[in-house]
Amino acid sequence: MAPGGAADDSKGKNTKWKLLTKDSMEKMVRVPVKLWLSALEVGREDPRRLIHALKVGVALTLVSCLYLLEPLFEGVGRNAMWAVMTVVVVLEFTAGATLCKGVNRGIGTLCAASLAFVIEFMADKSGRVFRGVFIGVSVFLIGFLATYLRFVPYIKRNYDYGVVIFLLTFNLITVSSYRVQNVLQLTRDRLTTIAIGCGICLFMSLLVLPKWSGEDLHNSTVYKLEMLARSIEACVNEYFRDQTRDDGKSSKDQIYKGCRAVLDSKSTDETLALFGSWEPRHSIRCYSFPGPQYVKLGAVLRHFGYTAVALHGCLESEIQTPLSVRLLFRDPCSRVAGEVCKVFDELARSIRNRRHCSPNVLSDHLHEALQDLNSAIKSQPRLFLGSKKARPAANELAEAWRPQKNTSSGVALSSAKSDITSLQEWRGKRVESSERKVLRPTLSRIAITSLEFSEALPFAAFASLLVEMVARLELVIEAVEELGNAASFKEFSQEDEIAIEMGCYDKKPRANGKDFQSHVVHQAAE
Amino acid sequence: MAPGGAADDSKGKNTKWKLLTKDSMEKMVRVPVKLWLSALEVGREDPRRLIHALKVGVALTLVSCLYLLEPLFEGVGRNAMWAVMTVVVVLEFTAGATLCKGVNRGIGTLCAASLAFVIEFMADKSGRVFRGVFIGVSVFLIGFLATYLRFVPYIKRNYDYGVVIFLLTFNLITVSSYRVQNVLQLTRDRLTTIAIGCGICLFMSLLVLPKWSGEDLHNSTVYKLEMLARSIEACVNEYFRDQTRDDGKSSKDQIYKGCRAVLDSKSTDETLALFGSWEPRHSIRCYSFPGPQYVKLGAVLRHFGYTAVALHGCLESEIQTPLSVRLLFRDPCSRVAGEVCKVFDELARSIRNRRHCSPNVLSDHLHEALQDLNSAIKSQPRLFLGSKKARPAANELAEAWRPQKNTSSGVALSSAKSDITSLQEWRGKRVESSERKVLRPTLSRIAITSLEFSEALPFAAFASLLVEMVARLELVIEAVEELGNAASFKEFSQEDEIAIEMGCYDKKPRANGKDFQSHVVHQAAE
Repeated sequence: MAPGGAADDSKGKNTKWKLLTKDSMEKMVRVPVKLWLSALEVGREDPRRLIHALKVGVALTLVSCLYLLEPLFEGVGRNAMWAVMTVVVVLEFTAGATLCKGVNRGIGTLCAASLAFVIEFMADKSGRVFRGVFIGVSVFLIGFLATYLRFVPYIKRNYDYGVVIFLLTFNLITVSSYRVQNVLQLTRDRLTTIAIGCGICLFMSLLVLPKWSGEDLHNSTVYKLEMLARSIEACVNEYFRDQTRDDGKSSKDQIYKGCRAVLDSKSTDETLALFGSWEPRHSIRCYSFPGPQYVKLGAVLRHFGYTAVALHGCLESEIQTPLSVRLLFRDPCSRVAGEVCKVFDELARSIRNRRHCSPNVLSDHLHEALQDLNSAIKSQPRLFLGSKKARPAANELAEAWRPQKNTSSGVALSSAKSDITSLQEWRGKRVESSERKVLRPTLSRIAITSLEFSEALPFAAFASLLVEMVARLELVIEAVEELGNAASFKEFSQEDEIAIEMGCYDKKPRANGKDFQSHVVHQAAE
Repeated sequence: MAPGGAADDSKGKNTKWKLLTKDSMEKMVRVPVKLWLSALEVGREDPRRLIHALKVGVALTLVSCLYLLEPLFEGVGRNAMWAVMTVVVVLEFTAGATLCKGVNRGIGTLCAASLAFVIEFMADKSGRVFRGVFIGVSVFLIGFLATYLRFVPYIKRNYDYGVVIFLLTFNLITVSSYRVQNVLQLTRDRLTTIAIGCGICLFMSLLVLPKWSGEDLHNSTVYKLEMLARSIEACVNEYFRDQTRDDGKSSKDQIYKGCRAVLDSKSTDETLALFGSWEPRHSIRCYSFPGPQYVKLGAVLRHFGYTAVALHGCLESEIQTPLSVRLLFRDPCSRVAGEVCKVFDELARSIRNRRHCSPNVLSDHLHEALQDLNSAIKSQPRLFLGSKKARPAANELAEAWRPQKNTSSGVALSSAKSDITSLQEWRGKRVESSERKVLRPTLSRIAITSLEFSEALPFAAFASLLVEMVARLELVIEAVEELGNAASFKEFSQEDEIAIEMGCYDKKPRANGKDFQSHVVHQAAE
């Protein structure tokens, strides 16, 4: 190799090295900045996190005083460390979680201490070797049994942490007893210091700016009901919107967010309900935290959410009923969806205010809206004849329908995409978005869009899901009522109703000016 | 009060007391029996739990030897307790979880020790009071920062336990340094004993009958795919079954179980993927555990599951297309569903055998089945005319249809329930099952069943959802392929295909004898 080559090589290495240094320097700047931004975001999302962190700091400083201040140290001694450990491990975000862990730790330690004493008593009289073997065997047996017990669902749900602490303390005392003479002293110290630690944790979490799991569950339930309502609203609006005009991304985000909030709530709900059941009651009227009822309502809402997702699926489907046909049913569908949303809003309001929901939450309006949808579908029999041949007829019908209904919305009847266009579009999208290596002979979507399914089929699915939703409403109302009974919600009063109706008036004009008029007339007649 | 009354009273109290004693005696017997049965069930469900419990017992006995055996005790000393604690806390069910916790504990302890030494060095020169204040302030600050950091999603997901251990060790060393002179000794002991504990845990979980999270995730993914297939199959069978004949409970259980397995998998999947990412690779071919790909496939399957649940909703809906009408579409619908199931089975098989799926997993049969469904729907235009008037026509059509298709199934055309009957039935069911206090004027379901929606509407929804499923198949296949690329699955070979086809022949006759014939013919022609 020429010397020039070697020089080049070293130069290249140098450049490479510089680049690498620059890269890692940049990374070293980027990571803390990212962490800092992420930390800011965390605080902004829920400022209570900041408060919790401050509380932990204060609790740790308090418990450190046991060690730092002379008089306290003399009282407790070196074992104050257990108190510090307890605070680090037990103090949790919500009062319920702290109570659950604290009580578990207490019970676990007590049980372990008692059992350890029984073992100690039995091994006490025997020789040193036998004693060692005895301790070894009991450690194995208790370790095996306790670990196995942790798999039992009931124990796992409620006392998992307690069993771990039991095992820890048992081993600590039993094994120590082999070398240490004053095991009683050790046990008493451990119990005392853990009690001090738990005391500080409970003080900080129950009395200083407490955060209740039950409250969180309550609020998240209200939030879920509202999000579902918004999501259904957005879904129906999106379905009848001219999708060629703008992207409607915000609307889709809304739908997605609403469904997500409901569908992914299972584990959060169950955890909050569990911790909530450990919390003391705020009200004298209800005897125990209605956690199971909240969880049940959550499950019913999730099931409702599946229908909402299926409705959303109608928007994303490859085969679509042409907009001109869809627009024929815009009014009745929007009204049904609007009524469903109203029911959800009323349910959310009733839970938020801890009162029973209005006895006529399923109003006559809902029934009327359903009947309108029914007659709208029945009045268009020709639509369901299917196939492309029917489309001119459908357009004719659409033209005939519009002046008759006097809808003054400015949506132009966009001509429906032909199958070929949509196929080409889809292919374009595919090339754009996919970075896949293997290009399989694609069948499914292309095959579907080129099939001539009855045009009414997708709309029929949409309408059917909408009606299905109304049918499911009753289950939601039942679950809310059950919750209301369990949580001793206050009775529904007439004043509430008036407030609701006022609220309806406030909201209505936004949705539909004409409907608002008829709504007022209807109310006056009642 | 007469003395007889007092005697009566005491007698009554006696009886009450006896009853109470008997009751609590019974309870004392019942609870352990229940716990015992539950424990047996837990072991039967997954025998690996028994093995894990045994492993924990052995590990605890091993670590206790540090204390029980003279030479070992001399080496480690009293701080052997930390090793015992480490084993109790770190040894988890799967290797990944143990590694995650062990590494977290190690890193947390190391970081805390380093930081504590910096603090110790800074406070060393100052007076006693200032030192105490300095330690208190640093405990507060570090406690606050570490707790706040735990809320950052990235830290929470990967290093939550590490931060807790960091906080614990930091406090332990810093606070101890105020009283203890040889902090270096304390720190070294803690590090050594924790290392011993972690070592025993890693030995037990990685080398003695290891259980891999990645393996669990792999198997659960295969299981989910299969369950979805069975669930869709059962759903379609149930839809075209004469529901008045038997209860079909087992079939509904199947559907429910299949959907549940998929829909509730989010948190389990994510945990398994996280722990899986800590596990060492088994194969040299793939560089890192494809956890994100498994999670993505899980999400896609969940989304598919929503459609499956909506399909299931069609079974439970209050408004139903009469069986006579439904039966007209039985064959094409069953075929489409069968093809979808075949795709799922092939995907499950490919993941189980860690090979890419067949390039023509979306076979021509699926396309044909879709086209048949399409033409079946188009051939029945009169059905979509809706309202009760159409029913005789539909029945006529059904009669005309059956001999033409030569389906020899023995299902009689049961006459559709009239609205009045179904309303009465529903009321009966309602009184039977509900124990609610408030009987609200019920509108929704009654209103819906009494509406005369087009009879074809519910079936249209069913068919549309079925077609939607086929469209979603591609997303599932994409996710499986992505997983295959990330996990370096082996290439699909011709032999696999032959095996699959053989498998199809084995299965086919069970489903439909006639189709089997055409299938064979078709295969031969290819």
